[in-house]
Amino acid sequence: LERMKKWTVRMHQMVCKVGKDDPRRVVHSIKVGLSLTLLSLIYLLEPLFQGIGQNAIWAVLFVILIFEFTAGATLYKGLSQGIGTLSALFLAFIVKVISQSMGRTGYAVFIGFSVFVIGMLTTYIRFFPSIKKYYDQGVLVFFATYNLITVSGYRDQNMLHMVFQRLYVIAIGFGLCIIMSILILPNWSGKDLQNSIISKIEALAKSINEFLILTACVNEYFQEPDKKVKSSYPSKDIDGGYEAALEWKSADEALETFASLEPRHSRYCYPWQQYVQLGKILRHLGYTAISLHGCLESQIQTPRSVRALFRQPCQHVAEEVAKVLTELADSIRKHCHCSPHIADELHGALQDLDIAIKSQPRLFLCSKPATVPRTDTLDLLAWRSKRQVDLSKDSNRKSLHRTLSNIAITSLEFSEALPFAAFTSLLVEMALRLELVIEEVEELGR
Amino acid sequence: LERMKKWTVRMHQMVCKVGKDDPRRVVHSIKVGLSLTLLSLIYLLEPLFQGIGQNAIWAVLFVILIFEFTAGATLYKGLSQGIGTLSALFLAFIVKVISQSMGRTGYAVFIGFSVFVIGMLTTYIRFFPSIKKYYDQGVLVFFATYNLITVSGYRDQNMLHMVFQRLYVIAIGFGLCIIMSILILPNWSGKDLQNSIISKIEALAKSINEFLILTACVNEYFQEPDKKVKSSYPSKDIDGGYEAALEWKSADEALETFASLEPRHSRYCYPWQQYVQLGKILRHLGYTAISLHGCLESQIQTPRSVRALFRQPCQHVAEEVAKVLTELADSIRKHCHCSPHIADELHGALQDLDIAIKSQPRLFLCSKPATVPRTDTLDLLAWRSKRQVDLSKDSNRKSLHRTLSNIAITSLEFSEALPFAAFTSLLVEMALRLELVIEEVEELGR
Repeated sequence: LERMKKWTVRMHQMVCKVGKDDPRRVVHSIKVGLSLTLLSLIYLLEPLFQGIGQNAIWAVLFVILIFEFTAGATLYKGLSQGIGTLSALFLAFIVKVISQSMGRTGYAVFIGFSVFVIGMLTTYIRFFPSIKKYYDQGVLVFFATYNLITVSGYRDQNMLHMVFQRLYVIAIGFGLCIIMSILILPNWSGKDLQNSIISKIEALAKSINEFLILTACVNEYFQEPDKKVKSSYPSKDIDGGYEAALEWKSADEALETFASLEPRHSRYCYPWQQYVQLGKILRHLGYTAISLHGCLESQIQTPRSVRALFRQPCQHVAEEVAKVLTELADSIRKHCHCSPHIADELHGALQDLDIAIKSQPRLFLCSKPATVPRTDTLDLLAWRSKRQVDLSKDSNRKSLHRTLSNIAITSLEFSEALPFAAFTSLLVEMALRLELVIEEVEELGR
Repeated sequence: LERMKKWTVRMHQMVCKVGKDDPRRVVHSIKVGLSLTLLSLIYLLEPLFQGIGQNAIWAVLFVILIFEFTAGATLYKGLSQGIGTLSALFLAFIVKVISQSMGRTGYAVFIGFSVFVIGMLTTYIRFFPSIKKYYDQGVLVFFATYNLITVSGYRDQNMLHMVFQRLYVIAIGFGLCIIMSILILPNWSGKDLQNSIISKIEALAKSINEFLILTACVNEYFQEPDKKVKSSYPSKDIDGGYEAALEWKSADEALETFASLEPRHSRYCYPWQQYVQLGKILRHLGYTAISLHGCLESQIQTPRSVRALFRQPCQHVAEEVAKVLTELADSIRKHCHCSPHIADELHGALQDLDIAIKSQPRLFLCSKPATVPRTDTLDLLAWRSKRQVDLSKDSNRKSLHRTLSNIAITSLEFSEALPFAAFTSLLVEMALRLELVIEEVEELGR
């Protein structure tokens, strides 16, 4: 009972959260319920039923399949499924005409054969990448409608009448969806695309902040090197934010298609092409953020002392980047220009970093002086021959192999400053890419 | 006509390509065609029709909706849609029983109301993230079935009979799908998951090779710095390969669910959990590859002379990485152990790189000597005040702002070796991550 109660509370919270996150969802649900009730009136009211009859049920099915959250998606689905249904009806009609002259048995065989052929072809066509991406549902509806019509048409003498009635019914369903989704409290895909961009920018800013917290506690992190290596790949907790920015492709490409179908509406037109462009740039920013994070996880680590020297300027740059991102998200949300001084503090932070690096040039020296390349080669040869011996005499190869390759890599005494240099370079790279984002957002503001 | 001919040829090529890429697709298409023909026999043959009747059409619809390419997907869809249909039938039955005592008008109002409530609730539920991810189709089928049954049940006195017949028919459809997809020439999701991993590894190897070609022609690339900056973001041609490795999530998560449903079959069991694990590690490798590519595109570039010095060892490492990846893909495909010496040459290449870096320690010095941080701060102050003046008097702020921020960043004289250091560090990082991939593949081989 206790558990049941807990579950109910959690359920209640979730229901509220889904509604609060986007109140348009509640409106949409009511719209769908209303449309279906209106359509079922055709069935329930006697005079309407006389005119349309059993076929009314297809209008219900059609509405269930095409009524989507945004106007663009509804239009897109309605068109693709409408075309699928129309061509299926047309094909079924032709098959009926052709088979008119055949006998009863011949007709049955012909129908069975056509079902086989159409089933095979449509299934095969659905493997085509472009069809799968854009017309999958349309093809499926074509396939289903054709089968339903021809097979049930076998026992229905008046198939032509049925075909026309179904057309009529689907037109009713389509019209109702259009009215409900475009004319009454419409949800636009363009708006969704904008929200998606804003949430991506905010996720990036948030994850950079998280990463600041990580660098802040990097001291403790460093005192246990063994622990670090174990927990390093793949660390889930931080990736989350970046991945939101990277997962652009599938969902947002669909939104893009839908948005392109929407009429230019209201005083403010959502410039979806620009959102798509901005999304691409953000994705690249996300990649940089991920490799920045990768540097923190790298197995070759800059010594703690070096890190401590540069922590402050690096953190400053990262903070500024996060701040700029948050401001940009705000300015997109409010459809306004962002301040022309938005990146000033970031530039200042970059200058500080530059100065910090220049003040410590010795760090970018290798840990060994320059005169010993020869000995190194000798070292290498010694290491290699030793390794060969090791390998030849080992019995449980696997674990040794693993240790060996770890030694092999960590024994390479790459300059200790390498990872730090990579870190800095990526941070600067990030600031540069941010510049592009700012430009794009300014473009949007106009 | 000429165009028509061309189009036909292209179409023909595409049809052949889809079949050649995976001959199982052709088999699957034939299986679908066959199943539907068998089901339509119920309708076409007189004795069978007497028993089942009009409802046969629902078996056809059910099969069209659930018959998927792999056995796991068919099972998953069959179960979720079967449960959806069953609960819809159950609910419709209850509504029918409750409304028994009402008058004709009361019944109609009750039905209309229930359609509204159910429509609203299911639409709202479909916004829940977990429902959307796993049970979307099941909920949709529940919704559609409930509407069809209650609305059409209004004029059908014998609804109970209809409900049972429909159950019967759906059981036939489900049984047929199971037989066709699991017993006759089955396609396993586990196999698909394996193929997906192999193609990801190969895509990574291919893109690293492509990137070698790019570095090879980096000389020409560098002589036109203006052109470079313009064409740098977002460059499409190279990203392709990496993105294949990154786009793990949506499609492969589905495959994962499907594979978990499949019975442990045949002599070789596909270890799907390990494939998923491997996919995660590969994704991280892909991120590193992307930032490596980002280094090539960076606006702060290492001078050509520096690059030329290290090009050879870097290329060697990259080549070895690509080679190891190709070998790993092969060993997964053949379900065999990979050679224990697979990474030996890679280690050799890393050693060479190490030596090359150590032989040129001066490069990792800053371009300016260490004694001038003061002047730098002065520079900075001068630059800032100059900038302030510039900003206050400018009229077309935008373009100037852009130029200014570009100057601001490129004027920061970060050590010229920084981007190169980042590049090297990432390359080494990649080799390290590759080590993890090798381990995972060895695990798989057992």
